Amino acid sequence: MQNITIARNGSRPSNEGPAEYFTGSVRVEMLFSAADPSRIAGARVAFEPGARTAWHTHPLGQTLLVTEGTGWVQEWGGPVEEMRVGDVIRIPPGVKHWHGATATTRMTHLALQEQLEGKAVDWMEKVSEDQYKRP
Amino acid sequence: MQNITIARNGSRPSNEGPAEYFTGSVRVEMLFSAADPSRIAGARVAFEPGARTAWHTHPLGQTLLVTEGTGWVQEWGGPVEEMRVGDVIRIPPGVKHWHGATATTRMTHLALQEQLEGKAVDWMEKVSEDQYKRP
Repeated sequence: MQNITIARNGSRPSNEGPAEYFTGSVRVEMLFSAADPSRIAGARVAFEPGARTAWHTHPLGQTLLVTEGTGWVQEWGGPVEEMRVGDVIRIPPGVKHWHGATATTRMTHLALQEQLEGKAVDWMEKVSEDQYKRP
Repeated sequence: MQNITIARNGSRPSNEGPAEYFTGSVRVEMLFSAADPSRIAGARVAFEPGARTAWHTHPLGQTLLVTEGTGWVQEWGGPVEEMRVGDVIRIPPGVKHWHGATATTRMTHLALQEQLEGKAVDWMEKVSEDQYKRP
């Protein structure tokens, strides 16, 4: 049988969010990866003002827990919604969306998603400046 | 297709951890529940000094993210391990264990677990004072 593991604070690198999938300055700290039969992976993602993900979907959805600052989240065809510390955002499977900081504030969230056949996200086009500007 | 939902900070009640499953003063805030096909549920659990879970297992394991304070975690037959803010603890499926505050400090963690056939935990006997005292 496997044993409990403790990954200590300070042991996990913080990587730049790849330019292919993010706009602006984004830091990604992988907290834990899927370990069969568990299929959850988690990351802490910090967005500087103006920074955001590209449009994307998750095969089994995603849950965001905002831990610092104020951000925006939008699903395709819907309004840009504000999200603040302590808010819990649930993105259903297959819903095209983006999330990030507001234009003027930082935002950090935990991002939790489940893998389906080894894949937790499908990336799409970038969020344009016009799409990003809050109506 | 379902839409994104935002559960605002302040909208979720904080309940006392039931005496059947916890020793001492414990507050449980359910953050989100499993929503098929996603099987993850998450809670924020705050333990006062001396407070802890009963022994238990999870059919698909559990991940703890310590967000405040310092606590203890132990698997059956293993040593009591300290866990501190920022530590990420992974408890494999079926491993009998408990977690809680230390005898003198508070501890809060996020607890993430996946359901198997509608069940995310199997509760067992309480952690005795002898078991709880750190060697």
